[in-house]
Formats: sequence, C-alpha cells, structure tokens
Amino acid sequence: MSKTHHFPNDIVHFAWDAKNEPVLTIQSGDTVIFETREVTDGQFNLDSTTEAIAGLDWNRVYPLAGPVYIEGAEPGDTLAVEILDLKTKGWGWTAVLPGLGLLAEEFPDAYLRTFDLSDGEYIHFRDDIKVPIEPFLGTMGVCPKNADNVAIMPPGTFGGNLDTRQLMIGTTLYLPVQEAGALFSCGDGHASQGDGEVCVSALECPMTSKLKFTLIKGKSIPAPQFQTKGALTPKVNHAGFYGTTGVGSDLYKASQDALRGMVDHIAETYSMTKIDAYLLSSLCVDLKISEIVDAGHYVVSAVLPLAVFER
Amino acid sequence: MSKTHHFPNDIVHFAWDAKNEPVLTIQSGDTVIFETREVTDGQFNLDSTTEAIAGLDWNRVYPLAGPVYIEGAEPGDTLAVEILDLKTKGWGWTAVLPGLGLLAEEFPDAYLRTFDLSDGEYIHFRDDIKVPIEPFLGTMGVCPKNADNVAIMPPGTFGGNLDTRQLMIGTTLYLPVQEAGALFSCGDGHASQGDGEVCVSALECPMTSKLKFTLIKGKSIPAPQFQTKGALTPKVNHAGFYGTTGVGSDLYKASQDALRGMVDHIAETYSMTKIDAYLLSSLCVDLKISEIVDAGHYVVSAVLPLAVFER
Repeated sequence: MSKTHHFPNDIVHFAWDAKNEPVLTIQSGDTVIFETREVTDGQFNLDSTTEAIAGLDWNRVYPLAGPVYIEGAEPGDTLAVEILDLKTKGWGWTAVLPGLGLLAEEFPDAYLRTFDLSDGEYIHFRDDIKVPIEPFLGTMGVCPKNADNVAIMPPGTFGGNLDTRQLMIGTTLYLPVQEAGALFSCGDGHASQGDGEVCVSALECPMTSKLKFTLIKGKSIPAPQFQTKGALTPKVNHAGFYGTTGVGSDLYKASQDALRGMVDHIAETYSMTKIDAYLLSSLCVDLKISEIVDAGHYVVSAVLPLAVFER
Repeated sequence: MSKTHHFPNDIVHFAWDAKNEPVLTIQSGDTVIFETREVTDGQFNLDSTTEAIAGLDWNRVYPLAGPVYIEGAEPGDTLAVEILDLKTKGWGWTAVLPGLGLLAEEFPDAYLRTFDLSDGEYIHFRDDIKVPIEPFLGTMGVCPKNADNVAIMPPGTFGGNLDTRQLMIGTTLYLPVQEAGALFSCGDGHASQGDGEVCVSALECPMTSKLKFTLIKGKSIPAPQFQTKGALTPKVNHAGFYGTTGVGSDLYKASQDALRGMVDHIAETYSMTKIDAYLLSSLCVDLKISEIVDAGHYVVSAVLPLAVFER
C-alpha cells in the first residue's frame, strides 16, 4: 500500500554527495510532501533590498530537501516523479547577481526585487503588468554517480538544477537513477520563469510540493525527460507574443542578441528601465531555437507573452 | 491609396545581391500576392522518391520571388511585413539530405517522403499520426547590405532563411532595411515545422502568400522581430507534451542530445524507424533553451506535442 510521507523541514544539504545519509526511505508508489526553503536558505525575505546581495553567503545557497532513498532503485532504472501539487508560500524574489546571467557584462550591478505572492494567480511586476504564477521546482534530481561534494548549481544528466519551467503541476519528470536508492533531492522553488531564466534568477520562493515517486525497473534514459498534462503556457496563450531574434554562428551569442533585442523592446515599448526589462524577461520570456540547421547560422528567438500587459 | 499587386510567377532569383533589378516597386501600405515554388524549384514532385535527392541541382535550390522595391525605404528604417494569408498548394515533401541536419552523422543516408496536403488541416504522417498544417514562409528578407551573390541558405540580421515557425498567418515580421528600397524577397514555403527544423527540411511546399508591407521610417532594429496574433501552437495546445533534454556546456551538443533522446523516444514508443522519428521531429518537435545561466551547464529541451497521436 502506498504511503504519504512528510519530509522533515529542518534537514537540508548543500551539495550532491553519494555519502549523504538518506533522510527518508520510501517504496515505489509513495508520495512525499516537501516544504522547501527559497534558494538563499532564508537570507532574503520580503523586506530585503538590493543591499542584501552583497552580504549573501554562497555556502548557504541551494538548500535541498533530501536525500530520499527509493527502495529497490538501482543504476540503469528510471525514477518517475509525478508532480501532484506545488504551492508557493507567501512571497518571492528575483535579482541580478553580479557576474551571473546571460547579459552579465551589460548588467554588472546587483539588483533585488521582492514580491507578495498572496494573490496566488499573478505577481504584479508593475501596476499594469501581471506575470502569471506557474510554480515549479528549479531543482529536482537523483544523486550523480559517485558524487563527492558536487556543487548544486550546474545541472547534469542526473537532473538537478534543471530550471525547466515545464516541470509544473501535472507533469511527470523522469530521471535516470545513478546510485542505489536514487537519492532524490529537491528545492529551489520558482513561482514564475521563462525558458532560459535569463537574468539568473527566477521568481525564487519557498514552496510546498507533493511528489509521487514510481520506479521503472530496467528502463534506462540518457538524461531527464518529462511529460506535461496540457498546454505549456496555458495562462498566456489567449493573446499574442512578441519575438526578437539573434542570428549567427554561435547559439550562446545568438541567445544574448535575442535577449538584448527583447530588453530594448520592453524598455522602449513599456517605458521601463532596462534592468527591470531584464528581470521581466527572466520571469516570462521564452528562448526558442528557431532553426539550427542552416549553413551554421542559427536563429534564437526570445518570445514575450503579451497577456502580461492586459489590464 | 494602397494597392494589391501580383508578383509575376515566372521570375525568381537564387542569391542575395544588391544589384538584383527590382521586379516590382510598391508604396508603403501596399499588399503583394506571391506564388512561390518549393525550395528545389520543381525538381521534386508528389511522386518523387529518395532517388531524386542524388540528382538534385543545388544551383536551383532556394528560388526566391523578388526583389520588391519599397519606395522610400532606406537603411536604418524598419520594414513591417504583415502576413495576411498563406495557402499551401496541394503537396509537400520532407527529407534527410546527406551531410546536413542536426544529427548528420547518425543519419548519413538520403531519405525523401512526399505528402498530399489537400486535407488542408493535417498531413497524415502515418495512419495514426496527424501533423497540423501551420504554414509559413521559411525565407523572407531584405537584401543584405552590399550583398554580392550571397547564398540564400544562411539567415542573417537581414532575415532571409529564418525558418521560424512563428511567422504564420496573422504575424507581422519586422525587418531592418539595409539597402535603398529594402529589396524584399521571399520563398521556401513550409507547411509544418518545429522550432529547430532539426532534420534540415520542413514540410517543403509551393505556397500562395499575401503580404502587406508598411515602412516604419526612422525606427531601427538590430535583427528581425515579430508579433504573433495569438497562441504559438494553437492546434496542439489542448493535449500534453513529451520532453527530452540535453544537458551540458555546449548548446549545440545539448540540442543534439535532446534530439537523440526524442528520436529514440518516438521510435520506441510509437514503433517507428529512427529516420521517420527524425523527420517527424523536424515537422513538429520544438527546441527550447530551458536554462542558459547555471554555471556554464545549459539545458535544451525537445518538446513533442502529443496531440499528433490523437485518433
């Protein structure tokens, strides 16, 4: 019979490590409820201002709830994680962190904004701009093979910090098991984020998550896969989209160019500072690879949902 | 008063060249109807088989209708191209062309399939697989600055072979004018294509297009931009999506990995040859940059609309 477990709130870890002691052991078919901290482990709160960034202790960034040991999981199996429910908890923040982000050179200065999430449906980025709350966990992963104090920030074929917005309520994430018991961990709740997470932060928030784990024995996948329940951007599909492009022989630079075009477009069209346009892009603009096959010249599009500007 | 022009069917050009004589001169606000050939200039037809690829004369690939001279257009202006209507004309093809495509090494052999498009709504990729027809012009562009016999295949900041599926009916494309008169050309009709055009071909087809041109004087953009009228994938948003990922420090390789995962997934799940799974991916799977900011490890997702498998 499958059970529902509550992962203890007071236990986190800050690195992938195959030697991390399992906190909870479950059977395939069980559900676990996690209460995860936002990604700074409580160093920011709703009243924080940009000054808080300078004092950030990076050793406390990425507190993950875990590991959860799934009985019978072995390398070569696949762990299915069904995302039954996700609830943001009151507030969130987004920021430019110096040296990070897709346009780190153009935006060298720290900048922090916090948001009240109590509306549940939207955040009010500005009086006339509503960004839908579409929560997901930025980080869900199994422990990488032989991991020895591995940093959380870079994702990998084991999953981890995937920052993939499609991992929303109703989606099932598939992860390739790399260590006995899988050693699943999660955290880094995001209330909103576009494909790319371009400024380096999503709308970071504490979150309550309800995840159901099912072991698929003998099925092996090379990297994370997922299946959504419905449309990818259901809250904004009723209106049009504005796209900017970057074209060239380097996908990263083309992505930067597409984003630069979008930041300028938003700043000019909606009378906004460029740094706010950069944050807004991180929360709701999607990066797409429009084409990747034309004589070594690629097109990346940055696509903005116009629904966020509806009154 | 704005006019509607019919671009002559019998005139094409095969290179971007600032010395190409304008075929049609129009005013801002005018509409032009183009009848464009499929991208091989008639070398393939509905009855063609894979053998036709070996005999392909590449000098006749990318026949473009144009140039259209827009009175008053000067470098630094923006040309708005409103896509009023697009109609496929009877049939289309898709293919693996040796040496090209995102997985050129795995799929070295030529392979051609043709499709009847007379249904208007879908192509029947297999009895039980329907891919929506959502037409767009693969190539729309102004003449690149000082272009001297420049190949059509690589796109650029002038537009051209953008292969961007969002340029569908109702979208307005914005192009940065680089030569006097703009010298707009178009062609390369696509009946269906996913973001990426991964196998190198879309569903290539002859097309009737109705485009309205408006000159925006004194507004300068760095690369093409566009605005859609509504949802990006309206015909498949009612069902779920299956995603595969590629994770790593190189966006191109991550894209390849995501696509390999998708080809394997489709081939296994739907009992299909891998090369057909590759073609199907090119017609309806979208490549997304899920995150581009996490310690130099990027996530690219390939996303398949499950609506294509509905009976």
